[in-house]
Amino acid sequence: MNFLIFVIETIHNSVIMKQILTTLALVLALATGLQAQELANFARGNQKPVISPEIVQDSVVFRLKADYATIVKLSGSWLPNPWTGTIDMTRGENNVWEVKVPLPEPEIYTYYFVVDGVAVNDPQNVLVQRDGTRYLPMLIVPGERTENYNEAHLHGTVSHPWYHSDILGMDRRLTVYTPYGYENSPKKKYPVLYLLHGAGGDEEAWISMGRTAQILDNLIEKGLAEPMIVVMPNGNPGQAAARTLNIPEKQIDWRAPENRELYVKSLCTEIVPFIEKNFRAIPKPASRAIAGLSMGGGHTISASNLYPELFDYICPLSAAGGSTPEQIATLKKAGVKLYFLACGNTDFLFNGAEEMHAKLNEQGLQHEYFVSEGGHTWANWRLYLNTFARKLFK
Amino acid sequence: MNFLIFVIETIHNSVIMKQILTTLALVLALATGLQAQELANFARGNQKPVISPEIVQDSVVFRLKADYATIVKLSGSWLPNPWTGTIDMTRGENNVWEVKVPLPEPEIYTYYFVVDGVAVNDPQNVLVQRDGTRYLPMLIVPGERTENYNEAHLHGTVSHPWYHSDILGMDRRLTVYTPYGYENSPKKKYPVLYLLHGAGGDEEAWISMGRTAQILDNLIEKGLAEPMIVVMPNGNPGQAAARTLNIPEKQIDWRAPENRELYVKSLCTEIVPFIEKNFRAIPKPASRAIAGLSMGGGHTISASNLYPELFDYICPLSAAGGSTPEQIATLKKAGVKLYFLACGNTDFLFNGAEEMHAKLNEQGLQHEYFVSEGGHTWANWRLYLNTFARKLFK
Repeated sequence: MNFLIFVIETIHNSVIMKQILTTLALVLALATGLQAQELANFARGNQKPVISPEIVQDSVVFRLKADYATIVKLSGSWLPNPWTGTIDMTRGENNVWEVKVPLPEPEIYTYYFVVDGVAVNDPQNVLVQRDGTRYLPMLIVPGERTENYNEAHLHGTVSHPWYHSDILGMDRRLTVYTPYGYENSPKKKYPVLYLLHGAGGDEEAWISMGRTAQILDNLIEKGLAEPMIVVMPNGNPGQAAARTLNIPEKQIDWRAPENRELYVKSLCTEIVPFIEKNFRAIPKPASRAIAGLSMGGGHTISASNLYPELFDYICPLSAAGGSTPEQIATLKKAGVKLYFLACGNTDFLFNGAEEMHAKLNEQGLQHEYFVSEGGHTWANWRLYLNTFARKLFK
Repeated sequence: MNFLIFVIETIHNSVIMKQILTTLALVLALATGLQAQELANFARGNQKPVISPEIVQDSVVFRLKADYATIVKLSGSWLPNPWTGTIDMTRGENNVWEVKVPLPEPEIYTYYFVVDGVAVNDPQNVLVQRDGTRYLPMLIVPGERTENYNEAHLHGTVSHPWYHSDILGMDRRLTVYTPYGYENSPKKKYPVLYLLHGAGGDEEAWISMGRTAQILDNLIEKGLAEPMIVVMPNGNPGQAAARTLNIPEKQIDWRAPENRELYVKSLCTEIVPFIEKNFRAIPKPASRAIAGLSMGGGHTISASNLYPELFDYICPLSAAGGSTPEQIATLKKAGVKLYFLACGNTDFLFNGAEEMHAKLNEQGLQHEYFVSEGGHTWANWRLYLNTFARKLFK
C-alpha cells in the first residue's frame, strides 16, 4: 500500500486520482494473479487470506485455492515414496483445498501440489529453492538440525564473477561467497573452500539447495568455523553458466579420453589462480579445501589425484572413489590435513564409499569417515557442509 | 546422462551396478517430476519431449502435458486484458495441450497456464523472471527492441553485498553490477548509477525483470555506454532483503512524517559512501547517476531535492513529480548534466509526468522528456534503461 499512499501524497488532482485508483485495482489484480471473480470477492472483502504451509504444533497444514479442480493432491519430499506418493487434499470453504499431515523431523523439504494431474507450486510460499530448472517451495521444519539453515544476523556477500577458461574455450560463471567483514578488513586474507555440485546441478546448486551462505554465516557468526571464501563453479564443462541464462551449450564429447579431465584442469589451473588474483585469498595448500557431492565428489577425487599438492583439505561426499593405491600414496606423501569422506548408509553409492574408506585405510591415509542416515539427498549434503566446514583451516 | 556414465566408469561391480541403475531410474523420475505411469511410458520410449514455447515463423506455440485436466488455458502479458483474458488450449496426442497464437511484437513477455482454474508455470521453459514472490516464465520475442536483453559475450559481475544502516537500524542487502573488466583493471575507477525499483519490487527487481546486467553488458560491449557500476538497493525501508530470504520486516509507520524520508537518507548518506568505500567508484557528482521507476522515481526526485549536489544525472521514470519550483531552482543551480524524464503515454501517472515536464520548463531546467507508447510496465522500464544508460557520464 506504500505505493498508493505515495501516489496520493504526490498528486493533488481528483480526476487523476480517480483514474489512478481504478488502474491501481487492476495493477493489484495483475500483481497478485487474481482472476476477475476473485478480484470482485476481494473488493467485497469476502476473501480470507490463504496461509500455506502453516505449522501447527506437531502438524503442518498445506492449502491451495483451486476453484474448478476435481482432484488436488500434495507431494512432499519427506513422504516414503516422494516420486509416486501423493496425499489427497480436501475441498473446503471458498474452494480452498487443505490437508494436515504430521510434521516431519527437522530438515528442509520440498513439496508441490498436483492439480488434476499437473504439478503446481504453492503461490503462498515465498521460500523457494531452484533445482536445475525447477523452482520448488520449501518447508523448513525448525529444530537443532536446521538451526544453521536459516538466515544469520551477519551476512556474507554472494557474487557471480565470470572467469575466462582457455581450456574450455569460454567465459564461465562462478558463485563466490565472501564472509561477513570481508569488505571492512581490506588487509585480511582468507582461506578458500572450492565446493562442487553433482550431476544435474550448476553453480547455483550449493547456494540454493545447499544453503551454503546461511550455513557459513551461522558457523562464522557463532565462532564455529574460520571465516573463509567459498567458490562454487559450474561443473558441466559445456556450460558457461546455469541453463536459466540461456547460453547455448558447447556440444563436444566431454567423455572422450582427451576431454574428460578438462573441467578439473580448468578448476585447478584457471579457477584457483583467478580466485587468488581477484579475491584476498591465501595462496597456500594449507588454506585451500576442496569438497564435492556425487559427480562433484568424483571431481574432488580427480583434482586431488591430478594435483596432489594443491589442496590440504579434501572432502568427497556421497561419491564412489576411483583412486588407485599409488594415487593415495602420492596424496599421503604430499600431505593432507583433513580427508573427510562422507556417505549416507542407504546411498546407492554407499558400497563405493566403503571401498574408498578401505583403500584409504590400506594406504594408511588418516581420514574421517562420516556415515549418516539416509541416501543421496540434499538433507545429507547440507549436514556434511554443516559438519566439515567446522574442521577446515584449523 | 553424464552422471550415469560417470558412475558406470567409476564403479566396476555388477551387483552395485544393478542397484545403481534401478535407483537411477527413480532419481531420474524424481528429478524430472514424472509420475509412475509417465515413468513407465518414458521407459518404453513412448514419450515425445514437449517443447514450449516454440516460435514458428510469425506464431508461437505453447504446450503443456496435463493428463487429467478438464480445461487448460493460456494467460499472457501481451494479451489485451492480461489479468482476465485467457486463450483456450486444445488437448492433443499424449494429453499434450497446445495453442498457437500470433507472435507479439519484439519484447519480453510473461505467461502462465491455467489448469482447471489454477495458475501453472511452464515446466519446459528455463527462462524465468521473479516478480516479487512469483516466478514467471518468459517469452523473449527476438528483434531490434530485445537485442540488448539477451546475454552478451562479455559479462559483468553481479553481487549481493550487505551494508549497515544506522538510519534504518539493520544490515540490508544490495544488488551491485560491476562491468566486464572490473576484476582485471585494479587501478581503474568507475562512475556509478543508483537504480531504484518500484512498489512491490525489491533489490532483485531490476536485475530480474529489468535485465540490467544484460542491457549494460550489451551496451558496454558495443561501446554504446561507459563502463559503470550499477547499484540496486531495496527501497522498502522495513525490509533487510527480498522477502524470499524470510527475514522478518521491521514494522513501524514508515509513512509518519519523521520516518518517510529515512530510506532516501540511508541511500544518500549510507549506501553511496558504502559503495565509494568498497568499490572502485569515482566519488564525484559528475560520476553519480540516480534513476528509478514509479515509487523509485519518487525516491529519485526526493533524493535530488534533499541532496541537490549529490547526483549530476537524474532520471525519474514513470513517476509523478512532487518538486516545488524552489526545489527545481536549487537543483538547476547545483548543476545537472542530464535530467531524463520518461513516461508511457497511457501510464496512469502520465499527467503527473506532463506536470513535471511543464514545471522543469517553467524553471528553465534543461531536460530530456522521453514519452513512449504504453503504460506502467517493465517493457517501458527496460526501454528507458536501454536508452538513458547510453547518455550517462559522457
